[in-house]
Amino acid sequence: MRAAVLRGPGDVVVEERPVPEPGPGEVLVRVTAVGVCGSDTHYYDHGRIGRYVVEAPLVLGHEAAGEVVALGPGVTAPAVGQRVSVEPGVPDLTCAQCLAGRYNLCPGMRFFATPPVDGALAEYVTVHAAFAHPVPDGLGNDAAALLEPLSVGIWACRRGGVTAGSRVLVVGAGPIGLVSVQAALAFGATEVVVSDVNPARLALARELGATAVVDARSERPTDLGDPPGVLLECSGVPAAIAEGIRALDRAGRAVLVGMGGDEVPLPLSVVQERELEVTGTFRYAGTWPTAIALVAAGRVDLDRLVTGSYDLDGTEDALTARRRDPGSVKVVVRPGP
Amino acid sequence: MRAAVLRGPGDVVVEERPVPEPGPGEVLVRVTAVGVCGSDTHYYDHGRIGRYVVEAPLVLGHEAAGEVVALGPGVTAPAVGQRVSVEPGVPDLTCAQCLAGRYNLCPGMRFFATPPVDGALAEYVTVHAAFAHPVPDGLGNDAAALLEPLSVGIWACRRGGVTAGSRVLVVGAGPIGLVSVQAALAFGATEVVVSDVNPARLALARELGATAVVDARSERPTDLGDPPGVLLECSGVPAAIAEGIRALDRAGRAVLVGMGGDEVPLPLSVVQERELEVTGTFRYAGTWPTAIALVAAGRVDLDRLVTGSYDLDGTEDALTARRRDPGSVKVVVRPGP
Amino acid sequence: MRAAVLRGPGDVVVEERPVPEPGPGEVLVRVTAVGVCGSDTHYYDHGRIGRYVVEAPLVLGHEAAGEVVALGPGVTAPAVGQRVSVEPGVPDLTCAQCLAGRYNLCPGMRFFATPPVDGALAEYVTVHAAFAHPVPDGLGNDAAALLEPLSVGIWACRRGGVTAGSRVLVVGAGPIGLVSVQAALAFGATEVVVSDVNPARLALARELGATAVVDARSERPTDLGDPPGVLLECSGVPAAIAEGIRALDRAGRAVLVGMGGDEVPLPLSVVQERELEVTGTFRYAGTWPTAIALVAAGRVDLDRLVTGSYDLDGTEDALTARRRDPGSVKVVVRPGP
Amino acid sequence: MRAAVLRGPGDVVVEERPVPEPGPGEVLVRVTAVGVCGSDTHYYDHGRIGRYVVEAPLVLGHEAAGEVVALGPGVTAPAVGQRVSVEPGVPDLTCAQCLAGRYNLCPGMRFFATPPVDGALAEYVTVHAAFAHPVPDGLGNDAAALLEPLSVGIWACRRGGVTAGSRVLVVGAGPIGLVSVQAALAFGATEVVVSDVNPARLALARELGATAVVDARSERPTDLGDPPGVLLECSGVPAAIAEGIRALDRAGRAVLVGMGGDEVPLPLSVVQERELEVTGTFRYAGTWPTAIALVAAGRVDLDRLVTGSYDLDGTEDALTARRRDPGSVKVVVRPGP
Repeated sequence: MRAAVLRGPGDVVVEERPVPEPGPGEVLVRVTAVGVCGSDTHYYDHGRIGRYVVEAPLVLGHEAAGEVVALGPGVTAPAVGQRVSVEPGVPDLTCAQCLAGRYNLCPGMRFFATPPVDGALAEYVTVHAAFAHPVPDGLGNDAAALLEPLSVGIWACRRGGVTAGSRVLVVGAGPIGLVSVQAALAFGATEVVVSDVNPARLALARELGATAVVDARSERPTDLGDPPGVLLECSGVPAAIAEGIRALDRAGRAVLVGMGGDEVPLPLSVVQERELEVTGTFRYAGTWPTAIALVAAGRVDLDRLVTGSYDLDGTEDALTARRRDPGSVKVVVRPGP
Repeated sequence: MRAAVLRGPGDVVVEERPVPEPGPGEVLVRVTAVGVCGSDTHYYDHGRIGRYVVEAPLVLGHEAAGEVVALGPGVTAPAVGQRVSVEPGVPDLTCAQCLAGRYNLCPGMRFFATPPVDGALAEYVTVHAAFAHPVPDGLGNDAAALLEPLSVGIWACRRGGVTAGSRVLVVGAGPIGLVSVQAALAFGATEVVVSDVNPARLALARELGATAVVDARSERPTDLGDPPGVLLECSGVPAAIAEGIRALDRAGRAVLVGMGGDEVPLPLSVVQERELEVTGTFRYAGTWPTAIALVAAGRVDLDRLVTGSYDLDGTEDALTARRRDPGSVKVVVRPGP
Repeated sequence: MRAAVLRGPGDVVVEERPVPEPGPGEVLVRVTAVGVCGSDTHYYDHGRIGRYVVEAPLVLGHEAAGEVVALGPGVTAPAVGQRVSVEPGVPDLTCAQCLAGRYNLCPGMRFFATPPVDGALAEYVTVHAAFAHPVPDGLGNDAAALLEPLSVGIWACRRGGVTAGSRVLVVGAGPIGLVSVQAALAFGATEVVVSDVNPARLALARELGATAVVDARSERPTDLGDPPGVLLECSGVPAAIAEGIRALDRAGRAVLVGMGGDEVPLPLSVVQERELEVTGTFRYAGTWPTAIALVAAGRVDLDRLVTGSYDLDGTEDALTARRRDPGSVKVVVRPGP
Repeated sequence: MRAAVLRGPGDVVVEERPVPEPGPGEVLVRVTAVGVCGSDTHYYDHGRIGRYVVEAPLVLGHEAAGEVVALGPGVTAPAVGQRVSVEPGVPDLTCAQCLAGRYNLCPGMRFFATPPVDGALAEYVTVHAAFAHPVPDGLGNDAAALLEPLSVGIWACRRGGVTAGSRVLVVGAGPIGLVSVQAALAFGATEVVVSDVNPARLALARELGATAVVDARSERPTDLGDPPGVLLECSGVPAAIAEGIRALDRAGRAVLVGMGGDEVPLPLSVVQERELEVTGTFRYAGTWPTAIALVAAGRVDLDRLVTGSYDLDGTEDALTARRRDPGSVKVVVRPGP
């Protein structure tokens, strides 16, 4: 099969590799669509993310959809021919975190496209059968791949306790901010204010249902009406994190999705006097059924985020699309013939 | 002022009464709309509900909207002229239940139209200022009155943990069932199955967004796909309660809204083996801000439920509307001139 | 090896069987102590429990401790020589319930001594390595076996939300009631009232820390001070369940541990007016670390419950001990040489 | 009556003042004991705490016990003669925070000894009847006064989710740290590690039940066994806050009790990767019943914290005790004759 392999910073080539064999409990998936994530771009640009370093050739891509083409030993479902969305992190299932239902915190997690585990920018991948989620016919391949970033937004809303009538502030209108906007609306939020410095992204946020937008170059979120009860911080910018926390209502919840670094000055007296809850998200757990239901019901539109598509040979173009085009939001690679 | 007074079963007359004076902390509200509830009808038909007996002339009506026309001592908000929706139960605010945020369970609650406390079928009522909730201009008088039954549906969804992607079974498609359907959708439920014996009500449920309906005369809710995670039981029929519980998925939640009586046989082995949570609702707490936000955002349509309106002299017709017209869902009395 | 095998109602024999081989992910445990549970006795007396029927020879016993003597393929911990307490139900780990942290509700659960799965009344058993919990030196073999019933009590307290200052009513002072008393105290309950018809058991409850006891033959739990906030129902007697629910405070929680059957009349109007939460327990999930910590810290005394011990040849005597001696609480079989 | 009045930094005098009249809903309490808090000392030393400035003569003291001697209009309980513990913050009861059960976050809170509201270092005080909590006979006056700091510890444990088997790290062994240790044990924690730089306080922590102590001058909490699941941060030292957070287990909870200031650098990447929850406490809500139950049941020993007592004339000595004696933990003023 063909696979797009990152050999070092700025060096991606398409290579021939053997089609992997599904092990016990696994299925083999023919990949139909792979979304390109900021982390893929970051590995491409820098060869590392924090302590994760690309030391050997690595296949990128962890937002993937496809079709089951073979079953490993012991697998009875999903069936061959079933279209699936791939949940790209498989935990050990038996540690204390897994048994408590927090499998995203499993120390033994193996996650696609995180060194040394290969990802999905290839014609075929194997994955644990329980992490190959069947999708209904009406849900297209691109959307099935983008259930992964939607899961990030859903998880943020769960941890933020977004519910009917919530007032939510989303900071950052990149792909994660935009799925968070849609997720918050689907959880019943009736005010979703979005802050960013990019007018095109704010316009898209509006189109996707944001009830107000804030151009962070000149406005503050606190200029707007009642304080939000939930902050979904998707920028990772330290000043924005602190400002977002200060904007929250008493008993509010701040969910830090964007990676903010190690020594971020936070307004603790505000956290204390208002008894805010500040937490972060690390991937997600148990989100695919919700993601599928929301997209199938038309509550979330993932196709609207796709601003470009490529075949496998175009992987390098896909990885540099955002650099070349500031209007790019989410690009998809379709490895099929 | 004029008030519709229940003197005994089947005996309602419009009388002159003095306009009440707002006490400390209260406002005087000129009533613009009052929804008629099944409990009003029940008092009219039988002169009692359980241990609550109409022993002296009683003004019915607890779903009310109006306009603030005077402020009692110490009140600064809402202002005179403000349109408000009346939350009809005022607790003592200082008992253990109130201090814990469960003011609906306050033993000292004074609730409109519950003997011996008069209700809102009159030209004017007084209410605690904190329980006269300002409504925005776009929200009409009928809808402002019907925030009360919507609150019942919102409270049921909260207690049932309805969230994005929930599968919900609503049993009973009367007014409370229908607001529960809308509330469940607003909380993010993606499957809302409604069961009733009345095809017209099932058709209305469909129109309001139910994803499937079950004619309980010939079908079982379990005939349909995946088991629901939440039961909102709005019929109070013992057999339907038991059947609804049996239909639930493992770890499901059953919320009993319809009054079911004192000795209802329940399938405890199912409750135990699936670790279901069975609970009931008693009115609501803290629901008005959510109700207002949902209606203002267009997530819930209350006007669609109104099948008739009357002036104060038509109160008796309003109280007998459902008996006369099986297609009647919710009627409203508008006491104004 | 030798194993006590139930061939039919009232028919237990000790047979020679091959020592089992630990499969991948499993360990082989030399059994040192097995507590006898009411379900073992019930299978012995009746050959079935509800829909679980003993159709082939079955080894009973699911409260077990021992020492690891061999590791299956891929296992690195616990080490050979480690003393362990056996968690007797192993789920499939990948279904929706397991991934949500509710592995006790796994439809694919394989549970010791539940037909057709053999139990632990034998010299050796195999179990998944993650379900063989290391115990510290100070914790004896009997206590290590009885971490299983303690887990039932811990799980009941978790589902009941028992916390510091809780007022708890425990109905039934059999072994499960008595571990529930101790668990409730360890969770911080400051009032633990126990109701039973057996004065000896009530005396033992007192000795274990119950703050008041009620002889159900002549007293009602409601005769005592403030109403409890939590009911831990361990009798399974329908009248006691209903009475326990009626005794609860507003917003109270009823946890049904004792199996109550399929058609139990419950006071739903009380559930609704007080917004009680009624739920059941089905085994437990994630309780062993807590159970070990509580016993190791001296907060719970399991040895005090042991009223008799037998070797493997005495299994039949162990299974009939309670029938012969009403003072019997918990007997233990020690299969070792 | 006589009252100790703070006229400016370092300037406390005992003055004659009229006995206050209990207003509607209030009781008059003859004060028997008042604990001296670090905030009292801070006002005495500096004349302010943050934005709260002593601009007019102020009576200090908010940890108070006494006896009801008169009832205001409308009050029926507690009765004259009842010994009570005073909850020193009375909210407006009707704002959104109060109605949600979070009355500690009420913007209209009036709190004893917080300018311009007078405190309890006087012979008599008035307080809302619902905030004068009856205490049983066995609970002494000093302990009744110290239910206030115990409430801080209880609230910290509630927000931290401390439960049976929790592993808790308490940073800071001052009075709040020490009540937090006791509260954590009462909530069922089986490991309570305490860190401080003062060996005498660490020794007292040990005596009160801490399972391990860490001398922060030379040791790290992470030197000890398994990571804690809950941090109760009572020092307010920025470096200790960050270190405490880094010590937490995955999915752990950090409760910031000690005031840490406005720009505290936190390790957000740890918060995110482990999905920690970081929150603060602001006073408490609904803690008195729990505090009374724990002390009455002997689970918490408050008298052990008292290292000195004074009459009203000794108020200045009480306020400077800690400065003069590093072994001082908690001093009490007894204003009675």
